[in-house]
Amino acid sequence: MAPTQTAISPTRDENYAEWYQQVIRAADLAENSPVRGCMVIKPWGYAIWENIQRVLDGMFKATGHVNAYFPLFIPLSFLQKEADHVEGFAKECAVVTHHRLEPGPDGKLIPAPSALLEEPLIIRPTSETIIGATFAKWVQSYRDLPLLINQWANVVRWEMRTRLFLRTAEFLWQEGHTAHATKEEAIEETMKMLGVYADFARNWMAMPVVQGEKTAGERFPGAVDTYCIEAMMQDRRALQAGTSHFLGQNFAKASEIMFLNEKNEQAHAWTTSWGVSTRLVGGIIMTHSDDDGLVLPPRLAPAHVIVIPVTHKPETAAAVLEYCQKFAVELRQQHFAGRAVEVIVDNRDLRGGDKAWQWIKKGAPVRVEVGPRDMEQDSVFMARRDRPHKEKVAVKRGEFIGGIAALLQEMQDGLLARAQAHRDANTRRIDTADEFRAFFTPRRAGDENSPSEIHGGFALAHFCGDPAVEKQVKDELGVTVRCIPIDDFTDANEPGACVITGKPSPRRVVWAKAY
Amino acid sequence: MAPTQTAISPTRDENYAEWYQQVIRAADLAENSPVRGCMVIKPWGYAIWENIQRVLDGMFKATGHVNAYFPLFIPLSFLQKEADHVEGFAKECAVVTHHRLEPGPDGKLIPAPSALLEEPLIIRPTSETIIGATFAKWVQSYRDLPLLINQWANVVRWEMRTRLFLRTAEFLWQEGHTAHATKEEAIEETMKMLGVYADFARNWMAMPVVQGEKTAGERFPGAVDTYCIEAMMQDRRALQAGTSHFLGQNFAKASEIMFLNEKNEQAHAWTTSWGVSTRLVGGIIMTHSDDDGLVLPPRLAPAHVIVIPVTHKPETAAAVLEYCQKFAVELRQQHFAGRAVEVIVDNRDLRGGDKAWQWIKKGAPVRVEVGPRDMEQDSVFMARRDRPHKEKVAVKRGEFIGGIAALLQEMQDGLLARAQAHRDANTRRIDTADEFRAFFTPRRAGDENSPSEIHGGFALAHFCGDPAVEKQVKDELGVTVRCIPIDDFTDANEPGACVITGKPSPRRVVWAKAY
Repeated sequence: MAPTQTAISPTRDENYAEWYQQVIRAADLAENSPVRGCMVIKPWGYAIWENIQRVLDGMFKATGHVNAYFPLFIPLSFLQKEADHVEGFAKECAVVTHHRLEPGPDGKLIPAPSALLEEPLIIRPTSETIIGATFAKWVQSYRDLPLLINQWANVVRWEMRTRLFLRTAEFLWQEGHTAHATKEEAIEETMKMLGVYADFARNWMAMPVVQGEKTAGERFPGAVDTYCIEAMMQDRRALQAGTSHFLGQNFAKASEIMFLNEKNEQAHAWTTSWGVSTRLVGGIIMTHSDDDGLVLPPRLAPAHVIVIPVTHKPETAAAVLEYCQKFAVELRQQHFAGRAVEVIVDNRDLRGGDKAWQWIKKGAPVRVEVGPRDMEQDSVFMARRDRPHKEKVAVKRGEFIGGIAALLQEMQDGLLARAQAHRDANTRRIDTADEFRAFFTPRRAGDENSPSEIHGGFALAHFCGDPAVEKQVKDELGVTVRCIPIDDFTDANEPGACVITGKPSPRRVVWAKAY
Repeated sequence: MAPTQTAISPTRDENYAEWYQQVIRAADLAENSPVRGCMVIKPWGYAIWENIQRVLDGMFKATGHVNAYFPLFIPLSFLQKEADHVEGFAKECAVVTHHRLEPGPDGKLIPAPSALLEEPLIIRPTSETIIGATFAKWVQSYRDLPLLINQWANVVRWEMRTRLFLRTAEFLWQEGHTAHATKEEAIEETMKMLGVYADFARNWMAMPVVQGEKTAGERFPGAVDTYCIEAMMQDRRALQAGTSHFLGQNFAKASEIMFLNEKNEQAHAWTTSWGVSTRLVGGIIMTHSDDDGLVLPPRLAPAHVIVIPVTHKPETAAAVLEYCQKFAVELRQQHFAGRAVEVIVDNRDLRGGDKAWQWIKKGAPVRVEVGPRDMEQDSVFMARRDRPHKEKVAVKRGEFIGGIAALLQEMQDGLLARAQAHRDANTRRIDTADEFRAFFTPRRAGDENSPSEIHGGFALAHFCGDPAVEKQVKDELGVTVRCIPIDDFTDANEPGACVITGKPSPRRVVWAKAY
């Protein structure tokens, strides 16, 4: 097929990883900062995160949670309280050792030796230990339970190989932390929040996800059970998009979260934690975008409609602009997905075509051009981001305004259906080791010299549960068990034989290469 | 006067500083964390901050700003780029020196010597330098200006003596950072955002403020001019509640923020920065609260109406509760200050009197008790937080619902009027050094053994402008020039003679003891 000119180069087929970086650059979402591994989230990218925050925050509050804020710093001794936890997080953390700078021998500033901290402080990689220590003070009796707390915060995990939104040293997230009187309640909470994440991914991000349990090797350090939502990106890799942990009494014991139960006995609480991060922005990008740039699910788009006044004729420019502004005011009175329709009138001193391309690359759902002739006919000239960019239709102004909410929802539904079809098309039940290996062996697509790696996708295959087998598959193929599904994704929890060892397996699991 | 029983002990008169801590504790707003100098913001306190954020964020966006996010870490070399800036901030910062922990000789974790950072990183005390470095990349031409960015973030300034909300090592804030093509535009921005802060303080916090300019000694390190809003607390001390800085070209030169102007010449941009923090919560507490605990301006209260069902008679309990729930649903359909009226039905298994006192201490604006008799008469029994707690009135249910927004606004106005009257009563024009000293000499109020320090308040007195005089007054009396007013606070910008030296003074300034 002859190459078509696209706004993003390379295309997804040519080099998916580089395409991802270029989409972010073209949409002005984020950039690498002068600080190694940290990103600057630019206004358009941050506005997506603000929308994610607003909606999730509402969902957390609707399920009985309240927000609070805990310190950025974790004393080293706190991290050591839970053995698995410290093992998992001590390896990649930012350590504060001094609290003052002073001029060194050559006059340049150095950490002041006299300001060495007695105990180093860790920048939180996650807050179980510091929140646990606080919960221990708050919880005295069963009447104080459940404690249902969420925190929006920045965290730091020192990473050597970073990628914007997907893996950065500092990232933004929310972390829920709850304490309960019984094991059953804590498990119920763990599953409820997993469900909230799945609901959000599907209905707001238009990103279908599998809900499942992690194997022991992929568990959160210190958790009894880790549950996750896993999505398939367009390169068929899995993205872990959110996790919900049943922590049992591990952290309650480490932090001494104790309470007097109804029988007047001292007992340890049962705790959970759950989180999603700015990684979700990466998930949106990789689920929906195309070779012309970002495509945004309308429910999370910072702006829904871009109005571009066609004002090159000086004699009509003022009238057209006024018509556009009035049109925008009316549009903003419409509501979509719980907020006013967001409209930008792009009146910058740029060519109309340049403006249109900028907004295509930024993923704005609907573009509307209005020129003198449209104005005369009381109509607008509309283009949708989910259709080819040359496809523009004239719509009567009133009709457009009255239909905007339905149009946006139709686009939202279309994105979900497309993502779902992509996932379904690249998910296969596999029953032999040969087929399994072949499924995950990269095949080059298009150009022979392309660095793009396209493999099968999600394999639904039986697994005996042996960690050694899991490690072997990871080392050999770069494939891991993404999760043991707990929803109806596989409709296959019948027992079978492990695809690798032939040993008995209780059910199929999802194997994939992952971000 | 015979002492009256109060919910908070000590009272304001007995020991203002301790009263402040006890109000925070009784209202469950925040507590000291296990990490020295850092606080845990508890749900009720955080909900006040969320309301502050929501309203201010709307005001920033309405004035053309967008949010973004910049790294937590600042490379040491960045801090050193601006001489005054580093001088001001190097003395009290958290320094990250390592990026990994490992077991030391005794098996306990220590910062791994092999993971020593080449260049130490500072936890941002403020972000001028890191944002400046980023702006330098974003700005090429005058067409890229103005850049109008805001960031909501945590910052760290190592403090030895901390006080919840007022001065903590880590605190939450917003920091606006803007870059402009001309000096005039940057000054206009500086003043506009000062005005936004003053508007917010007055109309949302019900806290009257003086807008003014800082003297050179109180300027932000690196700024050309620092403007501030200053409020009077109930102990007559000043609280600096927000600052807006005109940075000139200092940071643009340090960070090389250059652009091609309309004449096709390279020029340095002009920048501003402005911020308010969780300190505002401290301002709310100290402006309005009384000896029974927190008093909240209704516009920022997490909940407006607390409904307490009186259910001690088992035969009517279910009906009363149902009546209360229905009442709450109808109340929530009312709007006040841009959001739905927030209602909590407190159905906990506690005595009604205990519940009422908890909500008094938490500053809920309106409490409503509903028992079987009220239900029969289709009325509710209402108490207002701004009236004595025993003053309760029966109101017809429909009348209460229809009048709630007006009632809350009346309370909001009442708080502002009271704060304004307090400030006016404790502000005095002073023209002699003797009177000035007497004004600031502590007088004990009430009990002779009280540690409470009550002095005059705000002195409007002439000042020659000599920094040595300022220092002398600070050393002798603990009094500083809070600001050179630029609003109509003093209606007195006529020249005069310095209250200390007798030298010429262009106008009166505000002198006060400060937090």
